[in-house]
Amino acid sequence: MPDDPYSVCIVETQYFTFAESPNEMPLESGEKLGPITLAYETYGTLNNQKNNAILILHALSGDAHVAGRYSAEDPKPGWWDFMVGAGRPFDTDKYFIICSNVIGGCKGSTGPASINPKTKKPYNLSFPVITIGDMVRAQTHLIDHLGIDRLMCVVGGSMGGMQTLEWAVEYPDRVAAAIPMATTCRLGVQGIAFDEVARQAIYADANWKKGDYLNHGVVPAQGLAVARMLAHITYLSEAAMHQKFGRQLREKEHYGYDFSTEFEVESYLHHQGESFIRRFDANTYLYITKAINYFDLYRDYGTLEKAFRNVNSKFMVVSFASDWLYTTAQNKEIVKALKINRKPVTFCEIPSQAGHDAFLLPNPDMEKMIADFLAHVYD
Amino acid sequence: MPDDPYSVCIVETQYFTFAESPNEMPLESGEKLGPITLAYETYGTLNNQKNNAILILHALSGDAHVAGRYSAEDPKPGWWDFMVGAGRPFDTDKYFIICSNVIGGCKGSTGPASINPKTKKPYNLSFPVITIGDMVRAQTHLIDHLGIDRLMCVVGGSMGGMQTLEWAVEYPDRVAAAIPMATTCRLGVQGIAFDEVARQAIYADANWKKGDYLNHGVVPAQGLAVARMLAHITYLSEAAMHQKFGRQLREKEHYGYDFSTEFEVESYLHHQGESFIRRFDANTYLYITKAINYFDLYRDYGTLEKAFRNVNSKFMVVSFASDWLYTTAQNKEIVKALKINRKPVTFCEIPSQAGHDAFLLPNPDMEKMIADFLAHVYD
Repeated sequence: MPDDPYSVCIVETQYFTFAESPNEMPLESGEKLGPITLAYETYGTLNNQKNNAILILHALSGDAHVAGRYSAEDPKPGWWDFMVGAGRPFDTDKYFIICSNVIGGCKGSTGPASINPKTKKPYNLSFPVITIGDMVRAQTHLIDHLGIDRLMCVVGGSMGGMQTLEWAVEYPDRVAAAIPMATTCRLGVQGIAFDEVARQAIYADANWKKGDYLNHGVVPAQGLAVARMLAHITYLSEAAMHQKFGRQLREKEHYGYDFSTEFEVESYLHHQGESFIRRFDANTYLYITKAINYFDLYRDYGTLEKAFRNVNSKFMVVSFASDWLYTTAQNKEIVKALKINRKPVTFCEIPSQAGHDAFLLPNPDMEKMIADFLAHVYD
Repeated sequence: MPDDPYSVCIVETQYFTFAESPNEMPLESGEKLGPITLAYETYGTLNNQKNNAILILHALSGDAHVAGRYSAEDPKPGWWDFMVGAGRPFDTDKYFIICSNVIGGCKGSTGPASINPKTKKPYNLSFPVITIGDMVRAQTHLIDHLGIDRLMCVVGGSMGGMQTLEWAVEYPDRVAAAIPMATTCRLGVQGIAFDEVARQAIYADANWKKGDYLNHGVVPAQGLAVARMLAHITYLSEAAMHQKFGRQLREKEHYGYDFSTEFEVESYLHHQGESFIRRFDANTYLYITKAINYFDLYRDYGTLEKAFRNVNSKFMVVSFASDWLYTTAQNKEIVKALKINRKPVTFCEIPSQAGHDAFLLPNPDMEKMIADFLAHVYD
């Protein structure tokens, strides 16, 4: 890192708290939530006209730490570090970059593992079910707090793309440009099915204790690991898995005829599960997948054409060829609805083998397209 | 049923026991297993020349009960009932039909839940890991017992297709014709990954007790249900799920903003999980998926061309267009290797939307093709 002249370098997560009693924020469910804390990070400088702000929105397991490191010794940079910095697509020499964590999460923002000020105990399942709309409404308070009327761009992949769409549709005057990536206006039934099996894996863990595990001093680690391993398969393409692991055995040439780890792909999945349980909360997994499953612009507006009727943003929609969870066809539905409404939109399917996770990986095509689009919007 | 003039009517499962001490059957692992009981059913009559016998082989969760009912009141016929009977593709007026259960299973044949005669307790995880090769070797003893030298045809889908290939490759002189359906010479890495997550879901159930649950009077039902729900998604196509359920809510019009069953597809998956745990054993799930993961004719022979060099059967290979677990491409690898060896083979991809499960569902194309192929072989 010390040798990386383009990095945003040492960063710090910030926190903004609002919706204090009696001004709790209303939710789509009809419940209210407050106080609400949002974790966020910023890089670069907001210009005097306040028209160079870009809001980056993260996916299911992401957080506000999109770039940089917390210290010189921090071994791992933020989750989209290669995208953010001097001369990078989200150019911190030109733009003011904000990344906001979501409510319902476990990365510093108010979520089911937070302490309910009324009971002084974790919310657990008493936390209200939140939606993508609620996540974005909370973010509008943060953007107000930062003194920004209109964001130059809102961008995100997967669930971050859902938030991007929600921003553009619900707050048309606050979004000059939008880049939804690897996303959809409504998750397909197979996606809902995978998410439900993941939730069932968490419920099945004896340590879940009907969501009350934090009060019992345990965590449903095995159930959460199963959920993550399952999800991880859906984030990769068969071709990518084949290329990366194939049927290769791990550290042996012959079958062991037992139930220990044998195939490389098994070892990889175990590692994914184990690293996830160290950094994620099981109830949060339930809430966030529920929000993803609920997101449905068709349901909200009747048709997608109506949903996009009042948007006031330039769009660039990006899909990835091998993504079978948020397919190119789903991304094209967005493009089509925008075109019917004669809204400015460019579309690109990036020819990657990496599956849904492709948007998180360095890709010259993606980087150049985003850089060019932002330069165009900025001008 | 009483009104079905084509049915095989009332049937009975039979049992054949062999490999009694000291003649235990050697396994690919180097272990030995015995005594071994195989559950099987037969319909129709073996002719005097003993050349009209067809062996049907079942998939992961199948059993020997391929057709007919156990009593006049039995509400559900065997798993391929529409395929077996008078005038049906597996015509009991012409052919002698045998369906053999597999070792390692929990449907009447020797498996991990069987009593180990040496300890008088269930084998549990002391049961040896078995392979598709071991399953088929056990079946050769049954076919010997039935007095049949050469089977007119061996047929099966999915894991049944793997057994079909194993029969044709390892016992070329005992198989006149083979119909591998919706199968592969080696499962792809994505399939191994899904199976491993399913196994992890079973391990994660506190009632699994390292495989020793039968001695504790419990069953890892929730873990097994998760495994089944996950697998079930892979047996259907996205298009079929979309058509069947879409994003339809169950018995409500509006989101409930809680974690109860909401989408129709969730309800369907729960039902699949619940019905499975009543009829299947969790350790068996581990053993059978392991056998499926191990099956690899490339590994056994170096190349697929070599694997099929000595086969002596007419082949009909059948795939289903929307099957993404055992793809048409995988089925075509079999066809290609047979053609290189100048073996007689016909191939058909059936245009079904039903995914991997298509081979279990009535389909006029499939029925006619199999009937015609068998008539051709019989002549």
